[in-house]
Amino acid sequence: MRKIHVIGIGAGDPDQLTLQAVKAMKSTDVFFILDKGEEKDDLVRLRRELLDAHCADGTFRVVEARDPARDRKAGGADYSPAVVGWRSRRAEIYERLVADELGEDECGAFLVWGDPSLYDGTLGVLEEVLDRGAVAFSYDVVPGISSVSSLAARHRTGLNRVGRPVQITTGRRLADRGFPEGVDDVVVMLDAHQAFLQYQSSTDGGVGGVSGVGGVGGVGGVGDMGGMYVYWGAYVGTADEILVSGPLDEAAPRIEALRAEARERKGWIMDTYLLRRNLD
Amino acid sequence: MRKIHVIGIGAGDPDQLTLQAVKAMKSTDVFFILDKGEEKDDLVRLRRELLDAHCADGTFRVVEARDPARDRKAGGADYSPAVVGWRSRRAEIYERLVADELGEDECGAFLVWGDPSLYDGTLGVLEEVLDRGAVAFSYDVVPGISSVSSLAARHRTGLNRVGRPVQITTGRRLADRGFPEGVDDVVVMLDAHQAFLQYQSSTDGGVGGVSGVGGVGGVGGVGDMGGMYVYWGAYVGTADEILVSGPLDEAAPRIEALRAEARERKGWIMDTYLLRRNLD
Repeated sequence: MRKIHVIGIGAGDPDQLTLQAVKAMKSTDVFFILDKGEEKDDLVRLRRELLDAHCADGTFRVVEARDPARDRKAGGADYSPAVVGWRSRRAEIYERLVADELGEDECGAFLVWGDPSLYDGTLGVLEEVLDRGAVAFSYDVVPGISSVSSLAARHRTGLNRVGRPVQITTGRRLADRGFPEGVDDVVVMLDAHQAFLQYQSSTDGGVGGVSGVGGVGGVGGVGDMGGMYVYWGAYVGTADEILVSGPLDEAAPRIEALRAEARERKGWIMDTYLLRRNLD
Repeated sequence: MRKIHVIGIGAGDPDQLTLQAVKAMKSTDVFFILDKGEEKDDLVRLRRELLDAHCADGTFRVVEARDPARDRKAGGADYSPAVVGWRSRRAEIYERLVADELGEDECGAFLVWGDPSLYDGTLGVLEEVLDRGAVAFSYDVVPGISSVSSLAARHRTGLNRVGRPVQITTGRRLADRGFPEGVDDVVVMLDAHQAFLQYQSSTDGGVGGVSGVGGVGGVGGVGDMGGMYVYWGAYVGTADEILVSGPLDEAAPRIEALRAEARERKGWIMDTYLLRRNLD
């Protein structure tokens, strides 16, 4: 029976690998590297370094394939249909990889940045491959340090406050739906458009604006969100790490400038942030 | 300058330690073990095994102290005032430990189950110690695999669905405030009272009840939450691990029975679950 590990490899710091991940990597015959054609050289190099550091030469093979590009314009607010179609195309590719490249008694692995349970499609694709029924395998999941845990650790803050919830969401959803109700601590991932900017007390910067109102809970528009706090990080855990924290009104322009500069310099950016309202 | 590591040690599986955590442990002179007087022998033993496995004899000291008990009845729904008073009493103890037991050039460590960023008070207490100003130190945080990541990995499921948020909350809050709005995936921690039971389609078991309505989004009471799904785990990642997943109506009575039996047998229980509504 073929076996597959889905291995969380942490958020960028090679030392975030768990002992369990190292063991799983050592037991792997074939690493499947799926490239969307846009993967950054830094990330490719980092993954290669993980393999070199923990797996002996000649004990494994690497099989690379092209992950189909997703039509990011197709879906609208929820974009699930576009993603579902994309997942099916990925399932065909994964099915072929497993059937053609992994021997009956071999063990394959997918290395996932962060934690496979947060905003990663690998598990969904593997389930779809199994549903198709053309190839059989067992698989397990090795949890990893997510970019969320990594961000909180670098800022030395908790995600939740005492007895209170924390929500993890996407930049797109924050932009479309507003700050979620009933929760004051929101972690935002996959935010290409800096949705946090709209939560400054004064969004045009020129007028004094409503500052320091202290955060009214509940519904509320943008105007009454004064007094928010942000913990932001880019390339967290790597040599390029940038961290900014502070009252949102002060930090937002700084983040905007640092983000633009880093993106320009490196050609890509990976950032995450925690927005906190109703400060104690 | 004194230095302190706050080290996430994972959710129970010793192999969930990261390489970074192992390095931090090896560089530690003094491990502070705070015992609330109710700590379970299994957990004490597990932590001791981690030290034995990774730190050479004679290279470290262990200092044990009593963490003050929290008055769990005092606070009502939010119970923050009770927790704040408790935190201050803890700060006094931590301050004394650092001042008396850690040399000026030494490195201390607190080992935290799971991830220090989720429902753990250590960072708040250390900040309070620094605010008091009686003892100076620098500290860093090593992120750990949380019980949330661990649960998801063992069930081989994502926490979020595509483009959607996930909320992490407490059993008390779920019981007091109901299922949160605007989110369909909720992870529940620290639930001593099995708040999930109220989300069965029929809570009295005898009458047929409203089953399989398919989950109406938005506000809604208990009655229209039919069709929920649960992923539950206790002692996840340890030899005692118990996992149950399935439609809530089928799984809830099983979880209730298994939980009671395990709690009776072991004398304590640590469990977490993911509640999922509006199934695809």
